[in-house]
Amino acid sequence: MDEDAGRRRRVTGRAGGRAGNKTRAGSAAIDQMPWRIPVNPDRPVEPLDADGVQAIHRTAMRILSEIGIVFLNPDAVAILARAGCKITGENVRMDEDFVMEMLAHAPEQFTITPRNPDRELIIGGKHMVFVNVSSPPNAWDMERGKRSGDFESFKEFMKLTQYFNCIHIAGGYPVEPIDIHPAVRHLDCLYEKLTLTDKVVHAYSLGAERVEDVMEMVRLAGGLSHAEFDAKPRMYTNINSVSPLKHDYPMLDGAMRLAKRGQPVVVTPFTLAGAMAPVTMSGAVALSIAEGLAAIALLQYINPGCPVALGTFTSNVDMKSGAPAFGTPEYMRATQMTGQMARFYGLPLRSSGVCAANAPDGQAMWETSNSLWAAVQSGTNMVYHAAGWLEGGLIASPEKFIMDCEVLQMIQRYFEEATFATRDEDLAFDTIKEVGAGGHYFGCQHTQDRYQDAFYAPMVSDWRNYEAWEQDGAVWTHERAHKIFKQIMAEFEAPEMNGDHREDLARFVAKRKQEGGAPTDF
Amino acid sequence: MDEDAGRRRRVTGRAGGRAGNKTRAGSAAIDQMPWRIPVNPDRPVEPLDADGVQAIHRTAMRILSEIGIVFLNPDAVAILARAGCKITGENVRMDEDFVMEMLAHAPEQFTITPRNPDRELIIGGKHMVFVNVSSPPNAWDMERGKRSGDFESFKEFMKLTQYFNCIHIAGGYPVEPIDIHPAVRHLDCLYEKLTLTDKVVHAYSLGAERVEDVMEMVRLAGGLSHAEFDAKPRMYTNINSVSPLKHDYPMLDGAMRLAKRGQPVVVTPFTLAGAMAPVTMSGAVALSIAEGLAAIALLQYINPGCPVALGTFTSNVDMKSGAPAFGTPEYMRATQMTGQMARFYGLPLRSSGVCAANAPDGQAMWETSNSLWAAVQSGTNMVYHAAGWLEGGLIASPEKFIMDCEVLQMIQRYFEEATFATRDEDLAFDTIKEVGAGGHYFGCQHTQDRYQDAFYAPMVSDWRNYEAWEQDGAVWTHERAHKIFKQIMAEFEAPEMNGDHREDLARFVAKRKQEGGAPTDF
Repeated sequence: MDEDAGRRRRVTGRAGGRAGNKTRAGSAAIDQMPWRIPVNPDRPVEPLDADGVQAIHRTAMRILSEIGIVFLNPDAVAILARAGCKITGENVRMDEDFVMEMLAHAPEQFTITPRNPDRELIIGGKHMVFVNVSSPPNAWDMERGKRSGDFESFKEFMKLTQYFNCIHIAGGYPVEPIDIHPAVRHLDCLYEKLTLTDKVVHAYSLGAERVEDVMEMVRLAGGLSHAEFDAKPRMYTNINSVSPLKHDYPMLDGAMRLAKRGQPVVVTPFTLAGAMAPVTMSGAVALSIAEGLAAIALLQYINPGCPVALGTFTSNVDMKSGAPAFGTPEYMRATQMTGQMARFYGLPLRSSGVCAANAPDGQAMWETSNSLWAAVQSGTNMVYHAAGWLEGGLIASPEKFIMDCEVLQMIQRYFEEATFATRDEDLAFDTIKEVGAGGHYFGCQHTQDRYQDAFYAPMVSDWRNYEAWEQDGAVWTHERAHKIFKQIMAEFEAPEMNGDHREDLARFVAKRKQEGGAPTDF
Repeated sequence: MDEDAGRRRRVTGRAGGRAGNKTRAGSAAIDQMPWRIPVNPDRPVEPLDADGVQAIHRTAMRILSEIGIVFLNPDAVAILARAGCKITGENVRMDEDFVMEMLAHAPEQFTITPRNPDRELIIGGKHMVFVNVSSPPNAWDMERGKRSGDFESFKEFMKLTQYFNCIHIAGGYPVEPIDIHPAVRHLDCLYEKLTLTDKVVHAYSLGAERVEDVMEMVRLAGGLSHAEFDAKPRMYTNINSVSPLKHDYPMLDGAMRLAKRGQPVVVTPFTLAGAMAPVTMSGAVALSIAEGLAAIALLQYINPGCPVALGTFTSNVDMKSGAPAFGTPEYMRATQMTGQMARFYGLPLRSSGVCAANAPDGQAMWETSNSLWAAVQSGTNMVYHAAGWLEGGLIASPEKFIMDCEVLQMIQRYFEEATFATRDEDLAFDTIKEVGAGGHYFGCQHTQDRYQDAFYAPMVSDWRNYEAWEQDGAVWTHERAHKIFKQIMAEFEAPEMNGDHREDLARFVAKRKQEGGAPTDF
């Protein structure tokens, strides 16, 4: 009882102190940090010197002007032809002047405002936001093992996404719910996403109807007029190139639709060195940059100044098996190098929290830690798959989600100036004098005034000694996370929502289902 | 068979390419990177600006000159009195001029040469070496659970220490072997350490006899004359202050004995913020710096230019329970700040690989990853407890040892320029052109020429997909590590040793045992 009271006080104290947008934990399952948009104070780690940056830039420009990118979308090709690019069938070559002129339009930073305006995000600058795991076909947990994604699991992950204050964006589907027909899946999923969470959402670029439906649902969920929706970013999409050197039809189609309405597009080439990219890391990065800039140039030509971000998903394969590897040293350097290039081009950066591990164990956490610290070191603004990812993105796990959130909270705390401030009261000379040699600091006023907020307070970590831990069942971390998962599911409460908006949303879903949803021949 | 052959080739290729001191893995249990002294190419992460560095410096100097440090060693006090310090009983106050004059003598970098000169280390500059876990009273493994340290476990950890090329130093006792009488424990332990390994060893500063015995044993194991031993660093000790503001008798005694003979001393205050140091991190660092510099100034006065290093062990306690916490955000910032101060004073830096977890699980690896990346970011030169530590240093675990070595190897690989080189052959423009849109890079010459060495190859990580992993028993990381541990024990071969030197060593141990060993009233 006493301990619980102490913990509650601590969080209250924290929530009272800081940034504007804060939301308290709505439940008792765990004691978490309040909502905030983390700001990364560190100078990025920069493996490239100025010549290295120029070398990758020049190579990317030569790829764009001498080799070209295949745009498997006639509208995109026609637009780029009008822009003066050199067209050979579906191959488009663009010269450096054009690319750099287009990049100059792109904003270095933009906001996205979801239905709850307190959840507005800043993408760019020193800001860093975290996105839930997106797109695994399968789910895994300690109780049910591995299984294909279904709607039930989808909703569970949406609840986790809403529950954790350190998750800022409800990205793609955390698992693909294959028990929902693909024609209407986006309608059911977005309905749940927009009612179970009040955070920024994402639309898959999988055909015109889906993209348009999601934009309309975001508009209705927010109770916005069409003009209000178009006035500023309200949601976003992420597109991947088909490396090497291709952009496909539906991705380009979705990206162009969003760009026209001023909604953000993240362009993330998926370049695995040794498979769809050169086996050398700077070569893989140069290819990735070229593919990313090609799509961004197109979007800036369509709507100069529209919000875009450059994504990196450059890792390597295991050369023995061809299996993708994640959170490797090579992955870390590729992410840092891409961060340097994103700053060179003045674009916000997206990277990821990733691992190859099949269970939420030690390997999972060192690989994920490597990738998350690489995100910090690269100056990443938007961290995809920041919580819940296993098996190279083929599995979403609630235990891993909760374990990752502990790491994300530690990163948030690491960013706080309190951890390295050097005001007189931090340096505490008078207290050191007062306590003297051989004393202790537990009881002194300086400690008493600060102890509730002094240090990061963990959610799932167990810091007790072995005896206390053993007496309590010797519960390993993934098992503790599983227990927290069950508690959160039991006590989850959906965020507030205007009843009219919810009804409008439900009506739209019903109508679109009656019309047959979206075509499934993609 | 084919796969094994491929892996062997890969290691051969690596070993052929790089730094001078390389030793191949002597066995087939795992395929590891060759011996090398890692060089950290990154600019350190520096949370403090120039004013912050000055603020901590000024506070440390005020602590030393206005509050003073208690030296519980009359010889040390007498020496510091001669040096002009202000003495009040056991309290010694030293002014900034004296401290800075003494620090100016300390070398920024030095070598340590063990009995096998190929294992010579550089401590300082951009170099970074890894030390095994030191000093836990208990051992834990998957088979035997938790138990008090014994000689059998001690020898197992010595074998792991020798086996892994990424471990550079056989530090303190990985477990305290309580089945050996304390009077002769150092004799038996050092005999095993000096015969089971050929790496740099450490002496505990636990009384004159022990320190002198270890120095003599290192001399005999190397077949050195007294003059040869004294001519350069051959081993080292680490001393801890009794925070706040005290240095105890035996630690100072051992440090002074080594300093007189030009053997390195690492001075590592153990300042847990909120317990024996201020609850604010820069205050805890300032206290730690003052305690460290006080001992270093003493040693430089005794033997100007003797090799020393500044250690940091500043973390925080859990304010709910008082339990020490490790690998926290506060720990990371304290380590980075101390790195800035070490560079300011021109001293090599020691930090650690640490965690509070009680089992080799997810928490263990995120806490350890945090501390090891903080070591990288702080420019640490010597990483204590880099492999095998659990429960805040109260448990040594072979599974954790092996899991940590994977992370250490990834750090070594992360440092290699190949991961971020931008020569034309790395940028691979011609290959990108050759493969073109929609092709793949598996078969091209550029990949074929490089695939064996292109990427980090894991020891204990499993990168296979879930199905392959499940079919093979769904073995979690700690279980794989346990299996590797058993294999290494089965096939371990001690390093070569000159028979005469071994006999001299055995004779010395027998003689000292006959004499009763060392007093046990410490």
